[in-house]
Amino acid sequence: MSSPIDEVVRQAGEWLRGDGPMHEIVISTRIRLARNLRGFPFLVRADADQRAEVVATLEAALRKARGLEDFYHLNIDELDELDRTLLVERHLISRQHAEGSGSRLVAFHPGEASALMVNEEDHVRLQVMHSGLRLDETWDEINAIDDALDEHVDFEFHPQYGYLTACPTNVGTGIRVSVMLHLPALQLTNELEKVGQAATAMKLAIRGLHGEGTQALGDFFQVSNQITLGRTEAEIIDDFRRVVIPKIVEYEQAARDALLTNRLHALDDKIWRAMGALCSARLMSSKEAMQHLSHVRMGLHVGRLSSVDLRTVNELFIQMQPAHLQKLQGERLNGEQRSTARAALFRARLSQN
Amino acid sequence: MSSPIDEVVRQAGEWLRGDGPMHEIVISTRIRLARNLRGFPFLVRADADQRAEVVATLEAALRKARGLEDFYHLNIDELDELDRTLLVERHLISRQHAEGSGSRLVAFHPGEASALMVNEEDHVRLQVMHSGLRLDETWDEINAIDDALDEHVDFEFHPQYGYLTACPTNVGTGIRVSVMLHLPALQLTNELEKVGQAATAMKLAIRGLHGEGTQALGDFFQVSNQITLGRTEAEIIDDFRRVVIPKIVEYEQAARDALLTNRLHALDDKIWRAMGALCSARLMSSKEAMQHLSHVRMGLHVGRLSSVDLRTVNELFIQMQPAHLQKLQGERLNGEQRSTARAALFRARLSQN
Repeated sequence: MSSPIDEVVRQAGEWLRGDGPMHEIVISTRIRLARNLRGFPFLVRADADQRAEVVATLEAALRKARGLEDFYHLNIDELDELDRTLLVERHLISRQHAEGSGSRLVAFHPGEASALMVNEEDHVRLQVMHSGLRLDETWDEINAIDDALDEHVDFEFHPQYGYLTACPTNVGTGIRVSVMLHLPALQLTNELEKVGQAATAMKLAIRGLHGEGTQALGDFFQVSNQITLGRTEAEIIDDFRRVVIPKIVEYEQAARDALLTNRLHALDDKIWRAMGALCSARLMSSKEAMQHLSHVRMGLHVGRLSSVDLRTVNELFIQMQPAHLQKLQGERLNGEQRSTARAALFRARLSQN
Repeated sequence: MSSPIDEVVRQAGEWLRGDGPMHEIVISTRIRLARNLRGFPFLVRADADQRAEVVATLEAALRKARGLEDFYHLNIDELDELDRTLLVERHLISRQHAEGSGSRLVAFHPGEASALMVNEEDHVRLQVMHSGLRLDETWDEINAIDDALDEHVDFEFHPQYGYLTACPTNVGTGIRVSVMLHLPALQLTNELEKVGQAATAMKLAIRGLHGEGTQALGDFFQVSNQITLGRTEAEIIDDFRRVVIPKIVEYEQAARDALLTNRLHALDDKIWRAMGALCSARLMSSKEAMQHLSHVRMGLHVGRLSSVDLRTVNELFIQMQPAHLQKLQGERLNGEQRSTARAALFRARLSQN
């Protein structure tokens, strides 16, 4: 029988499926909830036995909870480094969870849209993720998972402050809404500052591909709320839906139109050089590849490129990552071998002959 | 009737024909002689009438001199900027001659191997140029031209110092031997210092593509003698033939072998990325193009590339230069238009479909 990881490698994943509303610019919508079990200390104070008990309690709850019966359960500590990295690349667990220690779990639906980390920063981190801008659907789903779990465990909840969390920035709703955006045109036209201003005005944070403290790669930017206390989930989600995301999408669309109208040669140059490099390099880092794939993806969406399909490009964003690459090759690869294998992958998938 | 310039544009030229001994590394051999007419002041002291008289004297001599009857004669001052630049790109005149003022001439054989500048820095600068390493043939030819002219004009010659020249560094033989080398592997392996050492040990200078004070472009380096006084022409030429050039060629060959043996992926990466960029860019500067063409040329010579032929690559080195590009397009182009036209030229000539 193949492992859940093997299943994951074989499928497209959710966060870069490339469909859903506004998918040309909005890569994915993700909502995360932080919860802690009543009667257990926060993790910074928990000993090994208490951590293990948290895991056992949640495993039991998951097996009984409505709609969560099919989730894969993986004990992070039992996975090798490659598999842990693969789950990070898949956006199913955080780097912190991968690199942590002690008893900890990830559980996720085979389709990868919903996942749950046990003993990351809080006892429980729920996550639901969909490609495109799908705030309501994502919220409804995570709300349902939260309710289903709530029937079998007792979450720490304060009548005045709401859900209590390890880090005070999550207290209250414990919600983090993150929308991943693909903004290559704003990057090319040096207008990302506009996005920063739009986000800060609504007290939202902008970050790179893998969240807090990470660099933007491949022109992917994640917008997420910073405030969880004093506003309802509906109000927080509304800021994204009604104000910030439409504004950023409009900026990016305007930048794409401006490039098409005023700087077509420069735009085509970026797009076709990216294809040229992907189809001809013999060594390629993931950082460089992200940038080229970003330009190719934009090329497809602005109609300047048609020799590849979007599905292939989206798959390559995922498959070219270090752990995926090694899984697909079926062997451990050092840095130069990965660079060679990555370049070969692009030539095989993107070359026309 | 078409002008000599039109004839020139249509042909391959001599300096990058790509044949001759050691042509994989030695691009061309050029010998230049500096001469001044007896009875005329050096040019820094000559007035307009005297400059004109020098031109008239030499034009008359050229028409009578044995073997020089077929030379094209062009009055530089009557040429527009584009044509003057084209002659520089062709290595038929110096930048100094193109940008100078007053009555001045270029005369050259239709095949472009031999040329003569009147009123550049000296009254006469003779030049013979051949692709590959052809020191003897080049010397014999320039010697014959010198003798043929000598029958019709009187060159300033001092019994002790030899030929007198405007700049003291040319006094004596007035000879400058220049060998253009293509050293991409030494550039990639960071070993150009070796070449510098070999040259300086023999009191030779290393310079970029267009001589003194210019930058090396496309990994082309010109080695030339600095000393003209106290050694015979034969001794100077011998230093090149027996010592310096074989040593540099050996270094470059060793560097190519080392890349093939130890860094094949990195070598292929350079070569194929160069092809990729040339076949896909929509905007390309001549500086960037030189670098890519250099890698493609090396790729052909080390047998890692066979989808283009050397002749095409050598032609492109010439044709992609600003003045050539505009002549071939038949119109004046601004910077961005040249960049676009250059990229289109590469796609048309190098793409396989």
